[in-house]
Amino acid sequence: MNKGRDTKEMILEIGLEMASRLGLEAVSIGELAKAAKMSKSGLFAHFQSKENLQIAILKFAGDRFAQEVVIPALKVEAGIARIQALVDNWIGWTAQLSGGCIFVQAGNDFKDRPGKVRDFLLQQQEAWIDSLRRIARSAIGAGHFRPEIDCDQFAFELYSLLLGFHLYYKLLHNEDIRERQQASLVALIRRYQ
Amino acid sequence: MNKGRDTKEMILEIGLEMASRLGLEAVSIGELAKAAKMSKSGLFAHFQSKENLQIAILKFAGDRFAQEVVIPALKVEAGIARIQALVDNWIGWTAQLSGGCIFVQAGNDFKDRPGKVRDFLLQQQEAWIDSLRRIARSAIGAGHFRPEIDCDQFAFELYSLLLGFHLYYKLLHNEDIRERQQASLVALIRRYQ
Repeated sequence: MNKGRDTKEMILEIGLEMASRLGLEAVSIGELAKAAKMSKSGLFAHFQSKENLQIAILKFAGDRFAQEVVIPALKVEAGIARIQALVDNWIGWTAQLSGGCIFVQAGNDFKDRPGKVRDFLLQQQEAWIDSLRRIARSAIGAGHFRPEIDCDQFAFELYSLLLGFHLYYKLLHNEDIRERQQASLVALIRRYQ
Repeated sequence: MNKGRDTKEMILEIGLEMASRLGLEAVSIGELAKAAKMSKSGLFAHFQSKENLQIAILKFAGDRFAQEVVIPALKVEAGIARIQALVDNWIGWTAQLSGGCIFVQAGNDFKDRPGKVRDFLLQQQEAWIDSLRRIARSAIGAGHFRPEIDCDQFAFELYSLLLGFHLYYKLLHNEDIRERQQASLVALIRRYQ
């Protein structure tokens, strides 16, 4: 890695953390320059616009999400164990960022802010929901889920459960939520078996 | 109603709509004055600070939420019919605001912004979760739910389902989501019967 790439990674790291806490819309070139203790013109040279910076943060987060959440789950045997791994990885990802999952945060920020950032975010959301759908399909393949189940319905229900966990954990700081979420996951999986 | 109160209501109405779309943090005295076509000093006379304005919007939204979501559900007979009414009312509330539920939006905006606004929002969240818990308890009373169920668990699962609906509806504009959400609700209720 060269120095320019190292600097860019460091900036994106700080931007990701900031977006997780305060929202992606709060991350401007000026604010991020302050947080990274760099000049505004230095940051501008890397990203050219706030929109490009926001998309770069989403891409950076997306790569890390793939590495930490999706890819390790795909290494676990298909079926219930893989679903459990995906959920555990997602919770690890959410716990590690001080404001929680950047995609949950950015989804709220950008639902009514049309443009390139929103378009990119929607692609990422579709890819994520597709991962959930495929993980249900592979559980059918493994003989754990009934063949006639609706994989889109499973994806929606699993995603809903993660969103509930996110709110109880990151907003309400509810201490029992890890256990509650696990109890709900077990009940959810049982309905599809 | 006097004129001052009418004006204040009109301002809060515009503020609620703005907070629903762009987030509560985006609502400042300056931005809201522009949207309401009023002078900044006029708005300042009503609210004195951005924080007070944000809390006033949350209060206004909370009163409306009580009138449109919770109180009408409590007029329906206790049990499954009441749960269904609460969910239908919540969906109506979310559909009516162009950016969706202000509390979902504000929860994201303020989870890492400590202060009076966050404290007030947390009280509202606790009251809402308490409504969900009590509605489960009244379903036990009506003989629809088993007496040994965990009402907190039900509240968490129902709230998660609403959050999932919110994301699919307001961010992804998924057209089937009303039906999916209803199918999940039926399955959720069945587990507690």
